[in-house]
Amino acid sequence: MQWTVPDIRKELSRYTRGDPHLTAQPVGGPLDEAAVAVRRIIEALARSSPDAAHLPGATAELERIAASFEDRIRPVALQLSEMWRGEGIARHDPATGPENPIAPPLSMHDAGDGWAEGTVTLGLPYQGPPGNVHGGVCALLLDAALAVANHLAGTNGMTAQLDVTYTLPTPLYVPLTVRAKQLRQDGRKRYTVGEIVADGQVRATANGLFIAPPASSGKGGSA
Amino acid sequence: MQWTVPDIRKELSRYTRGDPHLTAQPVGGPLDEAAVAVRRIIEALARSSPDAAHLPGATAELERIAASFEDRIRPVALQLSEMWRGEGIARHDPATGPENPIAPPLSMHDAGDGWAEGTVTLGLPYQGPPGNVHGGVCALLLDAALAVANHLAGTNGMTAQLDVTYTLPTPLYVPLTVRAKQLRQDGRKRYTVGEIVADGQVRATANGLFIAPPASSGKGGSA
Repeated sequence: MQWTVPDIRKELSRYTRGDPHLTAQPVGGPLDEAAVAVRRIIEALARSSPDAAHLPGATAELERIAASFEDRIRPVALQLSEMWRGEGIARHDPATGPENPIAPPLSMHDAGDGWAEGTVTLGLPYQGPPGNVHGGVCALLLDAALAVANHLAGTNGMTAQLDVTYTLPTPLYVPLTVRAKQLRQDGRKRYTVGEIVADGQVRATANGLFIAPPASSGKGGSA
Repeated sequence: MQWTVPDIRKELSRYTRGDPHLTAQPVGGPLDEAAVAVRRIIEALARSSPDAAHLPGATAELERIAASFEDRIRPVALQLSEMWRGEGIARHDPATGPENPIAPPLSMHDAGDGWAEGTVTLGLPYQGPPGNVHGGVCALLLDAALAVANHLAGTNGMTAQLDVTYTLPTPLYVPLTVRAKQLRQDGRKRYTVGEIVADGQVRATANGLFIAPPASSGKGGSA
């Protein structure tokens, strides 16, 4: 690795009790707006005919925009330290980040009683089996949701184990409720669960074990 | 759901024994090329300063391109039936698909002895902890790899259970080897394992249980 990772442990748990938003919210900034436009392009590509006449021209334009961005990008080391200075649950997260076009994004709020909850609708770019969400994308949403629930409970940690059970297919183009809650702590271990619900039926559940960094051990109280 | 999902079960297991590629390969088609350009934009956005002067202008161009695509997109029902007519392991998969800008993409080949293997390098858009791959993205890659290993073994199935163990952080900007193998079959059950390796060290492992559709039960031989 050619960069120094900033020590942002302290900054990872910045949740302010009472703030209804647990994930970074769109602020209409230039990166948010660019991400929204790129998401529209990703969805439209998934719904395009491969022989659509406009594709080559549009691709040439996209390549020109990519090159113009690339002329101005920051070194990874600088961007790494800059991008982590902001909100604890990051604006660039691949599941929840409003600035990341890969993210749907999943926005989560404090639903009370320790539950973090959000609603998201996924289109064809997230497809696995025909008409349904990719199992790995369900796992991505659940891992992110469990991390948000840990954030709500006061301590984050690295994912050590994530077990996902798929009970029913998760449909595309149907609002999905994603919720998670930290059940208990044991030393540096955090035990957290979550689920994805569509049309009132549980589609996938997750059990996660997270290990908090030594410095935050015990923070957020024991369960 | 407002569409009829095509019955493509038979088409899901089209792997031709001896074909070295287990995932759809880039063919330089218009959708592949558009996806490459959008991936470059996604990476560049993750490395852009939020106050970069060129962002608003570039975003306006992206919005114009998005609108021009949206004028020509197909209804979901039509696209669903069209996009599944092609290769068994799909060109639009969010982990392996060359036509999907969300996918890195992970390209996998037959590594012998039942192993499917591929190499992929992930940048900032896939970041979880600082400098490392998001745990949910690791799960996405592993779920996809296990599905590819099932494809290699002759029968696909829906993910029923995916257990991921994270042993070490998975670094960004370092080539990752992702490999998977179907260990055994029991009726319609498929037991499949996989791992992500970087710098010679295992970063994450997965155990998956997949359920094959009734029609293909027993196909591909029993283990």
